[in-house]
Amino acid sequence: MENIPNVLATRYASKPMKAVWSAEGRIALERDYWIAVLRAQKDLGLDIPQEAIDAYERVKGTINLDSINEREAITRHDVKARIEEFCDLAGYEHIHKGLTSRDLTENVEQLQIIQALEVVRTKAVAALLKLAERAEQWKDLVITARTHNVPAQPTTFGKRLAMFGEDLLCAVRELDRIIDNYPVRGLKGPVGTQMDLLTLFGGDAEKVAALEERILDHLGVGAALDTVGQVYPRGLDFEVVSVFVRLASGPSSFAKTLRIMAGHELASEGFAKGQVGSSAMPHKMNSRSCERLNGFAVILKGYLTMAGELAGDQWNEGDVSCSVVRRVFLPDSFFAIDGLIDTFLTILNQMEVYPAVIDQENQRYGPFLATTTVLMEAVKAGAGREEAHEAIKEHAVQTVRDLRSGLISANDLVERLAGDARLGLSLEQLSEMMGRAQAMTGLASAQVDKFCATVREESQNFPAAADYTPGAIL
Amino acid sequence: MENIPNVLATRYASKPMKAVWSAEGRIALERDYWIAVLRAQKDLGLDIPQEAIDAYERVKGTINLDSINEREAITRHDVKARIEEFCDLAGYEHIHKGLTSRDLTENVEQLQIIQALEVVRTKAVAALLKLAERAEQWKDLVITARTHNVPAQPTTFGKRLAMFGEDLLCAVRELDRIIDNYPVRGLKGPVGTQMDLLTLFGGDAEKVAALEERILDHLGVGAALDTVGQVYPRGLDFEVVSVFVRLASGPSSFAKTLRIMAGHELASEGFAKGQVGSSAMPHKMNSRSCERLNGFAVILKGYLTMAGELAGDQWNEGDVSCSVVRRVFLPDSFFAIDGLIDTFLTILNQMEVYPAVIDQENQRYGPFLATTTVLMEAVKAGAGREEAHEAIKEHAVQTVRDLRSGLISANDLVERLAGDARLGLSLEQLSEMMGRAQAMTGLASAQVDKFCATVREESQNFPAAADYTPGAIL
Amino acid sequence: MENIPNVLATRYASKPMKAVWSAEGRIALERDYWIAVLRAQKDLGLDIPQEAIDAYERVKGTINLDSINEREAITRHDVKARIEEFCDLAGYEHIHKGLTSRDLTENVEQLQIIQALEVVRTKAVAALLKLAERAEQWKDLVITARTHNVPAQPTTFGKRLAMFGEDLLCAVRELDRIIDNYPVRGLKGPVGTQMDLLTLFGGDAEKVAALEERILDHLGVGAALDTVGQVYPRGLDFEVVSVFVRLASGPSSFAKTLRIMAGHELASEGFAKGQVGSSAMPHKMNSRSCERLNGFAVILKGYLTMAGELAGDQWNEGDVSCSVVRRVFLPDSFFAIDGLIDTFLTILNQMEVYPAVIDQENQRYGPFLATTTVLMEAVKAGAGREEAHEAIKEHAVQTVRDLRSGLISANDLVERLAGDARLGLSLEQLSEMMGRAQAMTGLASAQVDKFCATVREESQNFPAAADYTPGAIL
Amino acid sequence: MENIPNVLATRYASKPMKAVWSAEGRIALERDYWIAVLRAQKDLGLDIPQEAIDAYERVKGTINLDSINEREAITRHDVKARIEEFCDLAGYEHIHKGLTSRDLTENVEQLQIIQALEVVRTKAVAALLKLAERAEQWKDLVITARTHNVPAQPTTFGKRLAMFGEDLLCAVRELDRIIDNYPVRGLKGPVGTQMDLLTLFGGDAEKVAALEERILDHLGVGAALDTVGQVYPRGLDFEVVSVFVRLASGPSSFAKTLRIMAGHELASEGFAKGQVGSSAMPHKMNSRSCERLNGFAVILKGYLTMAGELAGDQWNEGDVSCSVVRRVFLPDSFFAIDGLIDTFLTILNQMEVYPAVIDQENQRYGPFLATTTVLMEAVKAGAGREEAHEAIKEHAVQTVRDLRSGLISANDLVERLAGDARLGLSLEQLSEMMGRAQAMTGLASAQVDKFCATVREESQNFPAAADYTPGAIL
Repeated sequence: MENIPNVLATRYASKPMKAVWSAEGRIALERDYWIAVLRAQKDLGLDIPQEAIDAYERVKGTINLDSINEREAITRHDVKARIEEFCDLAGYEHIHKGLTSRDLTENVEQLQIIQALEVVRTKAVAALLKLAERAEQWKDLVITARTHNVPAQPTTFGKRLAMFGEDLLCAVRELDRIIDNYPVRGLKGPVGTQMDLLTLFGGDAEKVAALEERILDHLGVGAALDTVGQVYPRGLDFEVVSVFVRLASGPSSFAKTLRIMAGHELASEGFAKGQVGSSAMPHKMNSRSCERLNGFAVILKGYLTMAGELAGDQWNEGDVSCSVVRRVFLPDSFFAIDGLIDTFLTILNQMEVYPAVIDQENQRYGPFLATTTVLMEAVKAGAGREEAHEAIKEHAVQTVRDLRSGLISANDLVERLAGDARLGLSLEQLSEMMGRAQAMTGLASAQVDKFCATVREESQNFPAAADYTPGAIL
Repeated sequence: MENIPNVLATRYASKPMKAVWSAEGRIALERDYWIAVLRAQKDLGLDIPQEAIDAYERVKGTINLDSINEREAITRHDVKARIEEFCDLAGYEHIHKGLTSRDLTENVEQLQIIQALEVVRTKAVAALLKLAERAEQWKDLVITARTHNVPAQPTTFGKRLAMFGEDLLCAVRELDRIIDNYPVRGLKGPVGTQMDLLTLFGGDAEKVAALEERILDHLGVGAALDTVGQVYPRGLDFEVVSVFVRLASGPSSFAKTLRIMAGHELASEGFAKGQVGSSAMPHKMNSRSCERLNGFAVILKGYLTMAGELAGDQWNEGDVSCSVVRRVFLPDSFFAIDGLIDTFLTILNQMEVYPAVIDQENQRYGPFLATTTVLMEAVKAGAGREEAHEAIKEHAVQTVRDLRSGLISANDLVERLAGDARLGLSLEQLSEMMGRAQAMTGLASAQVDKFCATVREESQNFPAAADYTPGAIL
Repeated sequence: MENIPNVLATRYASKPMKAVWSAEGRIALERDYWIAVLRAQKDLGLDIPQEAIDAYERVKGTINLDSINEREAITRHDVKARIEEFCDLAGYEHIHKGLTSRDLTENVEQLQIIQALEVVRTKAVAALLKLAERAEQWKDLVITARTHNVPAQPTTFGKRLAMFGEDLLCAVRELDRIIDNYPVRGLKGPVGTQMDLLTLFGGDAEKVAALEERILDHLGVGAALDTVGQVYPRGLDFEVVSVFVRLASGPSSFAKTLRIMAGHELASEGFAKGQVGSSAMPHKMNSRSCERLNGFAVILKGYLTMAGELAGDQWNEGDVSCSVVRRVFLPDSFFAIDGLIDTFLTILNQMEVYPAVIDQENQRYGPFLATTTVLMEAVKAGAGREEAHEAIKEHAVQTVRDLRSGLISANDLVERLAGDARLGLSLEQLSEMMGRAQAMTGLASAQVDKFCATVREESQNFPAAADYTPGAIL
Repeated sequence: MENIPNVLATRYASKPMKAVWSAEGRIALERDYWIAVLRAQKDLGLDIPQEAIDAYERVKGTINLDSINEREAITRHDVKARIEEFCDLAGYEHIHKGLTSRDLTENVEQLQIIQALEVVRTKAVAALLKLAERAEQWKDLVITARTHNVPAQPTTFGKRLAMFGEDLLCAVRELDRIIDNYPVRGLKGPVGTQMDLLTLFGGDAEKVAALEERILDHLGVGAALDTVGQVYPRGLDFEVVSVFVRLASGPSSFAKTLRIMAGHELASEGFAKGQVGSSAMPHKMNSRSCERLNGFAVILKGYLTMAGELAGDQWNEGDVSCSVVRRVFLPDSFFAIDGLIDTFLTILNQMEVYPAVIDQENQRYGPFLATTTVLMEAVKAGAGREEAHEAIKEHAVQTVRDLRSGLISANDLVERLAGDARLGLSLEQLSEMMGRAQAMTGLASAQVDKFCATVREESQNFPAAADYTPGAIL
């Protein structure tokens, strides 16, 4: 009755992401960490037998959660329980010397964060590449751009995709900077002074520094914080969740826009192979994945609130009022962004556009957008500027009214203008202008090319991205 | 590797709360709901055989999650999978007639919410009763009240507890109002017009209304919404999470204050029976539970952000961009408030105060608080008002400085005042005033009595609260 | 250069709301409060000359902000500056006896809150009445309801409005409950023990209680908190901002939906009298007010975050870390909800619907919704159920595809069905069914009636609402 | 009555910050921007007379808000009003050619953001320098470090300051990266296709690019976005407010810790020159500025919520539902961080520490921290390990109990240990160990040196920071 699973992990997150945050995954990281410390301590002169290290290595893969939980129920101390388990398995008691719990847990959690950030980066770059592919595919497909959700000027569908793509691109660069500059806590002792390690090494500060250096190498990070207390500043966690919200921005705007486009039948998120609409309503193609994507973006903002409240709430050298909060938002925000990007990629893979419906929309609104051209040409052809402007405005407004009142069902502004002697333009001339105006998408296509080139160049640094394909989503 | 549990449920939530939100618990509610609809439909004249109802009743307890999941993997429709499972078990196909999925899921989720709110209410009232008990116990224990975290005037520890208690009391009343006024969606069909049910009953609107009435009885609620669309307004979910944040306010302020008091050794959250401090630092009694309580309060605000973003984001008759968000914040916010209140109760049960240390603090700061009395008495005794005021101020400021600079270790303001001829007061007279001033806690004790009486009276409506005891917490 | 106005107040808030929160408005409330205390103290036996009270009454309208600011620059204490100003004007020094600053400021701020809540309630009820009027007007106007933003079943536009209206109605009831149950801090002294007032009245607790009772009468509230510390629990502020978010839910969903409808030209928010579209794009009717309304809803959630962080963050008897936060979110959240409701009312007043376009949409999607009826009738007419179902599905899916691919521009499903011998139904029969199906809006109209009746009945308690008209908005 | 000022600007923000966000400041930036476009257009071949440019230059400083507001009241279009005003002043109509409103407003707002970010950076670096100075000053002042708010191990006060400083340092680096990578929207036209500019330059895309390049130079930024729509992605605004929350983290933790330390009289934020405590309570030194700093941090999180809701909420090429939100959170979040850092600097300038009280605390808790040393030495001296451990534990626990129960007022653990024959250590030996243990602050001092060196080196890039002094705060 009581086995309640983590819904984000179970329904939406990918295997690699779950692996990072699973109990087993964490214990594996911890044991590797302890062994790395042990090796370094030995190399720096501490009296640690090689057989002990070998023994720990040998048993590190034997992870028995039940046994660890039983120990914790007795000791009421989670780290102590895991130390005892590992030592009993190995038959030695050498790990964790000179360390306090936080020297283990903070660094291992940060390692989880780094590994999970790299999973996110690979997927985000994959999404950029797929967006570039789609933008290129439709870079010349003219659509009616909308501002305030009403028709404004022509653009292309590829340009619209690239627009959301550039938002994501900025976010990916920010993610990249955060990974590059991410510092770990390092080995600092219970209040950050490194006193216990200094004692362990007989007051030799250089050896303390050398040990930390070795552990940074093991973790694969460039820098440790210098003057932390019991914990690393929770502002770092805030940065991480913050960049997830930033990453969600482009895909979320895209998803809302696709939901709106689906409402006009201009495009849809498509169906998974074999999927059909409901039997009662076969015409209904719901934007379920887009909606879910928008839902993930909302979820991320909730976790950001949690992370934000912890930043700046450290009392003295630290306390653990953050503990339960981080148990929730750290894995769960990663599961949410993971699910979000996989959903985004799936939509990009399956989405469909309906050029015929797009063209109907262009036809309906196109003539309105050509009125400035008409004015210019009428003046060229000899009409008075003021009189021509007045004529055009009268017809445009009346055409809108007639369309909305149902008097007409197709936009006949061209015919009306052709029939007005004040302008002196023939139906042929006007029709030619209309064609021109509808095609006037400025530099849309060139912008798409630039976006695609940039994405492809920057993605070179992350070769795994090109091969990434999300698993099937719900 | 991939079985990642819900951390709030697993580590912190109570059995009854988990029961409400477990997959099995939900299925049980759904099946009861379907049967209730069936009975009502039969009573209202639909052709439903009694044997079918009996068959559903007989098998309703047979809940096989694996089988249901296998069905869902094929149909890709969760409600359909659960209908098929139930019908196959019963050997009939009568449930869900005239219903759309939301006629089932919305009402059942709202029933979960109501049941879970009632669990919360019982515990919250239990917390009020325990707070009243503690406030009464210490209603005359004089402590040094603090504003800006520095000593201000005397109060009593009981009054301080009642202060946080009244905050909680206001919140519990609000919770109570929300439960009393909570409306369910009812049976409204896919877009809210009740068209399908109207068809089912051959256009008889009264039967549609009667069916809904019967279902409200089954759910145990007083009212259904009248004009919903596909879903009930998500503002209702917002109200629920909002009242959790409101409920957390008093306990959270209490926990922060106890953490501060523990820092002064005035009080502590105590130890569980058998628990000791760390072997390395036996003096260290950490406020772990208080810290966790504050953590839960942070978590709730994160879920409030999620609920807040859904309120006011309904497009047309509704979409499902809320779905993934509600899967997260609904159960998880309930688990968090559940864990918060149990933690609060545990702290109230185990907390300790240290009267001797409290008295030392009163001694240190007491004399400063008596200076207005001294002034009054000096003037009575014949001193000039201005001169006396100046004398007192000089000594008070110098005493603070000498305490802080370490020149003196105990507050000797009384002696200084006694030695100043400008005041004309003897050491005996001054000492007597000091004693008076320290005891001047105004109506603190009477306020506590009033608080306790109110709590006990209002709690009469929730008799289960008096017996409630939280299970052991981590 | 440095006179930066409050943008929410200046651009969006109404006069009555600004009056509550202006510096002058607050000083006026404070002076009335001081005089009320004075009168009560005199009645309860304190030695206060009637001439002094008369003098304060006489000068209370003379509010000179510059003079007060100059005093504050010297004393660095805002309350002291205002006391001195008032006393100098009156020529007496009798106000504020036995009070601490918070006995003044907390109660006066709560009075501002109460008055401002009442402004909000009047407007919110006015919005309900206007919604009811509009819902009634269009209660039989059939539109195509949408779920997932795609066509689902018919409903009526009035029902859609009532749907958002019921969301608001729930919120207004909650607002009402909050106003009814709102407690003020009362007269409690610097740490809440009422010690100073007890001293002032020579230890007579009944007089202390009587004084507070008199002040509650002056404030027009039913209850004071009993056991507060320096401040009232900030959870009360949270409740207030929380109900604003709740109030915004219905209008915000309405505004998003109207923005979507405007994108389909089904309806628009209309133009203010004399307003026209841009000269360059006369066809463009932007949903500026709806967008702004959604913006206000976002703003409110930001202020809720601020209020939420203060709830549960009280240390001991209180500190002032909340001060700067409340200076921001209290007035500004009121300005935002004030502007939101006025904007909502303006939209309701000016909005337009376009029945012809609505009908075109119904025509396009109607036939799909009639397929269940067709199936039933075909079976009645002798067709095999399975064969008929298959035929209908084939034609429905193909029609969707042809519409999207541009092969057809009007929905010809009826013709296709008529041409399929498997169904055995004539074009006449099928057309008749189509007409029926499109009109099948179930109980939509009756629901609207019920909503209107409820709103009108409940609004009786707030007669000012019926007459309320918002001023012109930007 | 209705002139309600922006409270954050008026009470807390600095002159330079207000200058950026004032109406006049913005108009000045706009006019310079228009002139820069004009010059570039002329250079790129458009027919623009030099006299026109000269005329605009001549009148650009004449800013008459009233006149502009009157124009806006008529046109109901803010940009148009400002264009007309400027043109009328100059006597020419050449500005804004080929531009849409957003080509002006987005870039000018981003310029405001950049300028304001630079103000923030200078101050933040100044705060780091001041923190380094203070950390150095107290780098060897031993204090009792606390975790869970209870004594843990010794550290130094300088190290504690450097700990919060490193949090801020990470944030400043992040701020720096954001400024360095901040892209502006550039000149893109109403839907982002640059169509109008392309037309203006007769289809010459290179001239369009050259114009934009010139404008980037004018704005002083390195990059424009390539494929935006009507607006730049609001995720950029989110990044800005997010880094403010990040910046607030270190100062906020510092302020909470100083409030706690002030409660123990270990340190205080000090008084402004001439300021005294309240006359009634001269001993009371309230942490008002620290509390306010924590308040600013809360405010920033509220604005982050607003910014977060806009990110990912773009429909199509953009709408203006963000407009009212950005009018609030953009200036106001800058005012809040501005006030926060000035408050932080003021506290750093005025804060006081009380070494005598600090020493008393060290004396009280020191002996507990020395017990591991005692054990080691007892064993060396011949005691049995188990027996010695038991003896120490007994005495430590009993000493804590006796301190709390008031049996003793000073920690006499040393005497107790000296009197226990099981340990075989003299009072002299034990006292010597105590002295050693209390001084065991590990590498605290060296860490401070490293922090100071890093801060001073990195601050070289921002020379204005070294000279920055905040104005007097309230």
